[in-house]
Amino acid sequence: MSEDINNLNFKLPEPTLRRLPWYLAYLKLLKDKGEEYVSSTQISKDINVDSSQIAKDLSFINISGKTRVGYEINSLVDVLESFLGFTRTHRAFILGAGSLGSALLHDDGLSQYGLQIVAAFDVNPNKIGKVINGIHVYDIKDLEQFRKDQNVSIGILTVPVDKAQNVADMAIKAGIEAIWNFTPFRIKVPHNIVVQNTSIYAHLAVMFNRLTFQ
Amino acid sequence: MSEDINNLNFKLPEPTLRRLPWYLAYLKLLKDKGEEYVSSTQISKDINVDSSQIAKDLSFINISGKTRVGYEINSLVDVLESFLGFTRTHRAFILGAGSLGSALLHDDGLSQYGLQIVAAFDVNPNKIGKVINGIHVYDIKDLEQFRKDQNVSIGILTVPVDKAQNVADMAIKAGIEAIWNFTPFRIKVPHNIVVQNTSIYAHLAVMFNRLTFQ
Repeated sequence: MSEDINNLNFKLPEPTLRRLPWYLAYLKLLKDKGEEYVSSTQISKDINVDSSQIAKDLSFINISGKTRVGYEINSLVDVLESFLGFTRTHRAFILGAGSLGSALLHDDGLSQYGLQIVAAFDVNPNKIGKVINGIHVYDIKDLEQFRKDQNVSIGILTVPVDKAQNVADMAIKAGIEAIWNFTPFRIKVPHNIVVQNTSIYAHLAVMFNRLTFQ
Repeated sequence: MSEDINNLNFKLPEPTLRRLPWYLAYLKLLKDKGEEYVSSTQISKDINVDSSQIAKDLSFINISGKTRVGYEINSLVDVLESFLGFTRTHRAFILGAGSLGSALLHDDGLSQYGLQIVAAFDVNPNKIGKVINGIHVYDIKDLEQFRKDQNVSIGILTVPVDKAQNVADMAIKAGIEAIWNFTPFRIKVPHNIVVQNTSIYAHLAVMFNRLTFQ
């Protein structure tokens, strides 16, 4: 099955990629309840996504339902987990052991989704040498050497906004291939570097606005 | 100025709302450097957003640049912070004091953006009674009474997927008006309830996919 997945040698549209984890979360619930099959109509009803959209999204990963019975839940869960990369281990550094960085160090859930945080880095002498939830905080000067020794590809950017570009540049120079940017700053990177922006504070603004004008 | 903002009695398009915090983060940097004016061309160059898009986004909140000098940074920062709701205090509960819930309790950055977490709730007797980063964890049975006493409008949903719908229902019954859903489960809510989905694990999947197929 993983061979089939490796043959899917293309990038999925981002909206599809973002919906796949919703399907996975829902399907795992059904699996835990002992269900064997589910139709796209049923998925649609339970998670409020159009059923033709679901069928289209799943067809991207070569999954199609069987007439009348629908999708086989167990195999769909396996394919989705594998395709989404949750079954492999991706090694990452936390860049900035401040409030948000420390918060992420406390989230053991990330490892269940394939992200292993192996170390944190900071410039603050009061933070360097600390151990947060079992993860050591090192001097950011040692980033390049650590990265080489530990084969880490992902940097999780949790520095203050005014350091975001500078620390991203350092990480890329050190050999980091993907930056998970939790700052609200739009960093600029070479075209071969992956950037995933996750500004939870921007989501907060959307929610506040909806709450005010609801 | 806040009166003008309250007169903007409409919902902004979500993509605009999500970009406004990027502009704010960037403008605050310029402000800290002592700059007074900035053009949309300059913003565009530094944060990789089309300059006509920037002008359009800012026109939604009645902001327009002056010919030649551009936008006045100080007042634009004030208007954005106020419009985005970051200068008011919004009271929130953490629903689920597990790994992700505890992580958010460690993020003091949220309060800088106007979110004050006043209590956490859980069903687990081992968690009830604990204090995490100064916030007490209470029995979820007491949610309704607490909400009434403390005038809290936002529930931050950080329970396991299989509890997401049930706990969301409880929160809404208790009078919560907005759910910030950190689970990958698509909850169903009445039309008058605001839902903001922030599944950081879905973002992780997007990043893994890009990293594999880059």
